[in-house]
Amino acid sequence: MAPSRDAIRATVEGYVKAVATGTVDDVLALYAPGATVEDPVGTPVRTTEAELREFYGAVEPLAQTGEVLTLKIAENSAAFLFRLVTHLGEQDLLMEVVDVMTFDDDARITSMKAYWSQEDMVTVSVSR
Amino acid sequence: MAPSRDAIRATVEGYVKAVATGTVDDVLALYAPGATVEDPVGTPVRTTEAELREFYGAVEPLAQTGEVLTLKIAENSAAFLFRLVTHLGEQDLLMEVVDVMTFDDDARITSMKAYWSQEDMVTVSVSR
Repeated sequence: MAPSRDAIRATVEGYVKAVATGTVDDVLALYAPGATVEDPVGTPVRTTEAELREFYGAVEPLAQTGEVLTLKIAENSAAFLFRLVTHLGEQDLLMEVVDVMTFDDDARITSMKAYWSQEDMVTVSVSR
Repeated sequence: MAPSRDAIRATVEGYVKAVATGTVDDVLALYAPGATVEDPVGTPVRTTEAELREFYGAVEPLAQTGEVLTLKIAENSAAFLFRLVTHLGEQDLLMEVVDVMTFDDDARITSMKAYWSQEDMVTVSVSR
């Protein structure tokens, strides 16, 4: 049975929050066993838990804020636009990305593909 | 060789324009032979030109306007959010959809998947 829309929405919101401010374990808890990650699309697909841990481990220590801007759900899949802001001293690195995910019956992520390129990253000066 | 970003952008802009205001032939000219269409995701994949013609033929007679809101390109793929407004007498039907496409070397569409559901359609009254 396909997961409910609310369950998918909760996973997506939880994912962006976990990537921005959570731990690797927070992120991994949202993935189903055997899940795959292609980020960005066109790079080698990560297929093992070790590869996923390495990937999300790189962003864990960063000071970030995240926000889901648009979420479209179709059956057991979702495509969403989100903004991730990384706070680097006197600069913010802004990224807007479209992620496409599939989900299992428990709304755990079974695959993730991220659509973005260098062009979608902008650095802005901030006064803090 | 992957198509250039500008070529992909031109195909995406041309696609939304053709769907909104063009003919079936205008839309089909943007597809590569053998292309597949899954719209919305979760429904049977259309695989023949006849199926694509039938699909786009249904919207050809409608008075519509279309706009690409966000476009993310990664290698030979793109994900984009677009708005399609169908003008129905004293009502407008607004749809916002995320499409994911892959492209051949000539930036022709080789596959399209559309992420949306009933929830993404809104009817608004207009005075004309």
